Amino acid sequence: MTITPAEHAAMGRALELAARGPARGPNPRVGCVLLAPDGRVLGEGHHRGAGTPHAEVDALAGVRAAHGEGAARGATAVVTLEPCNHRGRTGPCAGALLDAGVARVVHAQHDPNPAAAGGAARLRAAGVDVVGGPMADDARTLNATWTRAVELGRPVVTWKLATSLDGRSAAADGTSRWISGRAARHDVHRLRAGVDAVLVGTGTALADDPDLRVRHVPVEGAQPARVVVGVRDLPPSSRLAQAARSGEPVHHLRTRDPRAALDALWALEHRHVLLEGGPTLAAAFWRAGLVDEVVAYVAPVLLGAGTLAVTDLGIGTIADAVRLDVSDVAVLPADTGDPADPTDTTTVRLTMRPRKES
Amino acid sequence: MTITPAEHAAMGRALELAARGPARGPNPRVGCVLLAPDGRVLGEGHHRGAGTPHAEVDALAGVRAAHGEGAARGATAVVTLEPCNHRGRTGPCAGALLDAGVARVVHAQHDPNPAAAGGAARLRAAGVDVVGGPMADDARTLNATWTRAVELGRPVVTWKLATSLDGRSAAADGTSRWISGRAARHDVHRLRAGVDAVLVGTGTALADDPDLRVRHVPVEGAQPARVVVGVRDLPPSSRLAQAARSGEPVHHLRTRDPRAALDALWALEHRHVLLEGGPTLAAAFWRAGLVDEVVAYVAPVLLGAGTLAVTDLGIGTIADAVRLDVSDVAVLPADTGDPADPTDTTTVRLTMRPRKES
Ligand SMILES: NC(=O)c1ccc[n+]([C@@H]2O[C@H](COP(=O)([O-])OP(=O)(O)OC[C@H]3O[C@@H](n4cnc5c(N)ncnc54)[C@H](OP(=O)(O)O)[C@@H]3O)[C@@H](O)[C@H]2O)c1
Ligand SMILES: NC(=O)c1ccc[n+]([C@@H]2O[C@H](COP(=O)([O-])OP(=O)(O)OC[C@H]3O[C@@H](n4cnc5c(N)ncnc54)[C@H](OP(=O)(O)O)[C@@H]3O)[C@@H](O)[C@H]2O)c1
Repeated sequence: MTITPAEHAAMGRALELAARGPARGPNPRVGCVLLAPDGRVLGEGHHRGAGTPHAEVDALAGVRAAHGEGAARGATAVVTLEPCNHRGRTGPCAGALLDAGVARVVHAQHDPNPAAAGGAARLRAAGVDVVGGPMADDARTLNATWTRAVELGRPVVTWKLATSLDGRSAAADGTSRWISGRAARHDVHRLRAGVDAVLVGTGTALADDPDLRVRHVPVEGAQPARVVVGVRDLPPSSRLAQAARSGEPVHHLRTRDPRAALDALWALEHRHVLLEGGPTLAAAFWRAGLVDEVVAYVAPVLLGAGTLAVTDLGIGTIADAVRLDVSDVAVLPADTGDPADPTDTTTVRLTMRPRKES
Repeated sequence: MTITPAEHAAMGRALELAARGPARGPNPRVGCVLLAPDGRVLGEGHHRGAGTPHAEVDALAGVRAAHGEGAARGATAVVTLEPCNHRGRTGPCAGALLDAGVARVVHAQHDPNPAAAGGAARLRAAGVDVVGGPMADDARTLNATWTRAVELGRPVVTWKLATSLDGRSAAADGTSRWISGRAARHDVHRLRAGVDAVLVGTGTALADDPDLRVRHVPVEGAQPARVVVGVRDLPPSSRLAQAARSGEPVHHLRTRDPRAALDALWALEHRHVLLEGGPTLAAAFWRAGLVDEVVAYVAPVLLGAGTLAVTDLGIGTIADAVRLDVSDVAVLPADTGDPADPTDTTTVRLTMRPRKES
């Protein structure tokens, strides 16, 4: 696993390039630098999202354009992820590297797909010198959610939960506007902008007629898909039904099986979904062990009565409670000048992962 | 309100001296420096807690011992709090300063007692030059809880609340050990060590037979008093009844009126009490507007069912919810080496004050 200083520097550069790719979507962010045998940089490339060339192919094309056919012969490809060996919308990268006559491949992260073998074996079999692992943690961090999704074979699920300090989502008479502060409400849009799809149950869709689009914050690329789960119909006049008719990405998954819903979303190339509720759908995902991350907005308000934010997780005794590991706690300050504004308040955001039994 | 540089420096020193006094108890922490007319320091003193001399008297005694009778004649007394004008266990300070022939008094905080006038008026009437206000904020901060208690005319009430992320204090079958992490449980002892009395309702006393003493952390001075509120008897075999019999400060206040309970605690010279529950007593204090601070330990665990940590605050609609201003958020990390230890977890502590209607 020894690599040269030039290769180490090239990997740092490849990671930088990778970070330019889109954070969402079915494909990982990958960067590639091609080095001549003497360590000189021949060219570089990165992946720009589904349907565009992979990083290796992008780099090879650049080298070919600048230095002519055959210029990558004997070169070393430094790439942040093990070259792929499957034919998607673009050809496999392992094949492209072999065709170009690359003599050595240094990659960071190994292909996380537990089923399919990566390209390293194919390259090695063809006589290419392959070194895997350097800076793998950085590369994995760059594609943390994608990696987890590939390992799990389903989209990663983030459950968004908004609650008063005493676990209520609405007061005794059903009123709930606004429990969270404005900064927290905007923060939810930031969460939406980071996922491929936003999910609610038919209960929420029918009760609230939500829009579910990203507002207030910029979205890189397209709006996330909006997804309703449950067998009941939505009225044609509902916002989501109207959006679907006008061709926007809105899906109604007519199932009550959370795993089936995730499989359908995976087939739609979604790798990260935001579960926004309601309580019934969220509890079903939780009981099925299909929640990977919880983002809870805890508003410093006490209600003492009203709708409970979380119900029916199938936990009878404290020993069965699923503990969460807290990865981040943030205080989202009230953002109005007026401290007496009842629609605005500081909110505390906890980001957590369920502790998996070992 | 002009003061000399020597007086300014002396006030800084007086604040340092004041901080040596006990943080709890019926009396504020006060420091005093006596300056000769030329600005030289003649002596200094501070208050060491109820039953001991006040800061001014302490400083005068020191000056007398070092320099003889009459040495404070014409001096300036620099003191962190307006000299008192009432005869408690020790004589009034205003009188002592007059007797010693002090010519000028510079004090920081004004006497917060809304009823009784402080000593400034008496000193002025006797021809002493009195300047009040310099560094008053620092002095007030030093005695923040005492000041609030005096202004309110009752003990300051801190409500300690422990809850799961979804507002439960126990699972469906009643089990609750341990929802909070160990660091959080120890932190409660730190809270106890900072108050004059710890309060629970008879419900908690009968259900849990709690000890309510400070453990795990050092206590400055005596253990806080342990107080049970409610009309029911405790069994003679209960821990609190036994402690009372052996002469420890345990009080059973046979009332259901929170204000009457606080009045009794005030008469016992308690200025800061920690309301530890249960939910019924806490809700009664809340509804009576008698909660000044809330310290909530939110454990990152979801239960989905079980006993609710907070009930019946008399809030029917979201507009009536009392919002809390968050003054501090702390993450109390799990303190065991073993991340799988189910009795330990990270806990988030929120310190808040109910937003008073303006
Ligand atoms: N405070 C918050 O953060 C928040 C967030 C969202 C919603 N809400 C509130 O929650 C309320 C709606 O609650 P809800 O629980 O009825 O909404 P929900 O969870 O959105 O929808 C529940 C419905 O989802 C369908 N469903 C799909 N998969 C299911 C499964 N595995 N198990 C059970 N049902 C499944 C069922 O309908 P079918 O019969 O159609 O299959 C079920 O009735 C609204 O008032 C909304 O405002 C609050
Ligand atoms: N998770 C936590 O942080 C926590 C903390 C403490 C307790 N707890 C749990 O809470 C449970 C006990 O709950 P609880 O609500 O019965 O306990 P509680 O609030 O300690 O006691 C309630 C009793 O206090 C008396 N009381 C005094 N003033 C009152 C007033 N103004 N209004 C109504 N009652 C008044 C009444 O008894 P009388 O008839 O005697 O007057 C009442 O039944 C226990 O299981 C305990 O473990 C949990």
